[in-house]
Amino acid sequence: MSEATYDVVAIGNAIVDVIAQADHDFITREGMTAGSMQLLDAEQATGLYGRMGPGREISGGSAANTLAGMAAMGARCGFIGQVANDQLGQVFIHDLRATGVTFEVPAREGEPPTGRCLILVTPDGQRTMNTFLGASHYLPVAALDKGLIASGAILYLEGYMWDPEEPRAAMRSAIITAREAGRRVAFTLSAAFVIARYRADFQALIDDGLIDILFANEEEIVALTEAPDWEAAVTAIENKVPLLVVTRSEHGAVATQNGERIAVPAEPVERVVDTTGAGDLFAAGFLTGQAQGRSVEDSLRMGAIAAAEIISHFGARPEADLKKLVAEKLG
Amino acid sequence: MSEATYDVVAIGNAIVDVIAQADHDFITREGMTAGSMQLLDAEQATGLYGRMGPGREISGGSAANTLAGMAAMGARCGFIGQVANDQLGQVFIHDLRATGVTFEVPAREGEPPTGRCLILVTPDGQRTMNTFLGASHYLPVAALDKGLIASGAILYLEGYMWDPEEPRAAMRSAIITAREAGRRVAFTLSAAFVIARYRADFQALIDDGLIDILFANEEEIVALTEAPDWEAAVTAIENKVPLLVVTRSEHGAVATQNGERIAVPAEPVERVVDTTGAGDLFAAGFLTGQAQGRSVEDSLRMGAIAAAEIISHFGARPEADLKKLVAEKLG
Repeated sequence: MSEATYDVVAIGNAIVDVIAQADHDFITREGMTAGSMQLLDAEQATGLYGRMGPGREISGGSAANTLAGMAAMGARCGFIGQVANDQLGQVFIHDLRATGVTFEVPAREGEPPTGRCLILVTPDGQRTMNTFLGASHYLPVAALDKGLIASGAILYLEGYMWDPEEPRAAMRSAIITAREAGRRVAFTLSAAFVIARYRADFQALIDDGLIDILFANEEEIVALTEAPDWEAAVTAIENKVPLLVVTRSEHGAVATQNGERIAVPAEPVERVVDTTGAGDLFAAGFLTGQAQGRSVEDSLRMGAIAAAEIISHFGARPEADLKKLVAEKLG
Repeated sequence: MSEATYDVVAIGNAIVDVIAQADHDFITREGMTAGSMQLLDAEQATGLYGRMGPGREISGGSAANTLAGMAAMGARCGFIGQVANDQLGQVFIHDLRATGVTFEVPAREGEPPTGRCLILVTPDGQRTMNTFLGASHYLPVAALDKGLIASGAILYLEGYMWDPEEPRAAMRSAIITAREAGRRVAFTLSAAFVIARYRADFQALIDDGLIDILFANEEEIVALTEAPDWEAAVTAIENKVPLLVVTRSEHGAVATQNGERIAVPAEPVERVVDTTGAGDLFAAGFLTGQAQGRSVEDSLRMGAIAAAEIISHFGARPEADLKKLVAEKLG
């Protein structure tokens, strides 16, 4: 096994977030479930965009957010995802490369346009996401750079990408490539609706021992295991993955490794502005800690620090100097 | 003279801001003057974008920002400006209409793309603007809706628009239309570099009695009058315009009307995040106060309240409920 030149190589959705403030009445009127993520087709996305308030566009995508956070903390990262050759695609490419992440997949010509996520943030800071996947849907197996995947110490996969057919095939192929190169595979369950559709797939990946690090929040781990509560869910799955990380919002996070459970509290936040990206940045902090050879507890704390930064402003890409924040709080 | 159905109709640049954080070294290295605005061609804009950090896209344009702020305070507004038929153009149209502003100028087909302003915000909150005008440059006289202009109690013009040839002609035509309909004309000087090029034009407009309300900051009023300091500049010009409003950053603002000077202090701000749009939102507050029949002093205070809100976050479009803020602070 050759030495890894990247700490993490990730495959994920390449989308730009369109973030607008909204009141709870609007969420109800639109028939959305507050705090959830739903997929929209092009027509639905156009309709909702027309009804929602003024926005701000900030690059997003779950795994891409994680890599942007990791790069800000000094990790070496590569991204694989699909944008269209349009203005939002250029924005996505610029923003990710400007953080220092390697991203070389060529933009796709023609329709559909670059994916976007219409995010409604209520006054309590909760985000409700409405995603039009656009070009992101069309990541072909051919776009996978096997050399890049083989050169990452960890391959990080986003559960959201399991939904469309082409990326699902691409991810299966990537897992094989990473395994053959002797790399670890990390997986984030992403959202309950994805698990509802692909529970059997995810359980098979886990049972086959293909997942080394599994990220989930309480709702997702319950959805995966169909256990009565998150603690029962952790018990049901902790012996099947070498490292399980469960985020618990304001209750902090728990990891289990070799039968040992380690918990950390949430990092205090002055005011929660927008929870978009909290899970993504938790993963960023945790994986950076692991890449730096830190303990599981310190890795969890780095996750909590990065998540706290991201929820204190709009958007899922860091604004503060995360490296400095970690150094101040953790050394 | 028929009754006005709009409080303000404005003509201005239709551009999307791309806001990135930068340190002072970057500003120096790029040969920029901190706090200034410069125009870029397409190639320069692409080059700078490639070198600057991750951004967030928020609709901008000086007069458009003013209208968005006015609409948020309940004023009835119409906008005239030119976007291209591309994704950033759609973003601009959506964001302005979502605030309640009427904006019906059709997007322009083909090149150039929608204008954008690359804004670098340093840790002290100061913004340095680099504008690629794009389609905004090509606002044709034919795009002016004379009925719309005649129906606004005030026609508001942005000095920035004096630079490109087509919009300059369009604005001259608009002034005639507004005058014939018996409306007031308000003008903002926008930036010192514009005044340096068109001082004679602006002075002629003022000398011909075509400007009823003139907005400027200290630097601009000095540039216009070539007086030794802002107070001498005010003295030189206050008898030539019925209402002169000079903003003075942290020193508040001064208005003169019928020989009487009225000053208000700046509204306190917890932390200055990004000064982009401070002057635009000051104008929004002031013009809304005037539209509501308030005194000059209260109109100035509304300007200070709106400016304080805008500099406390990234971007030049309001995030807080301005109407509520004004009601709390001013009644």
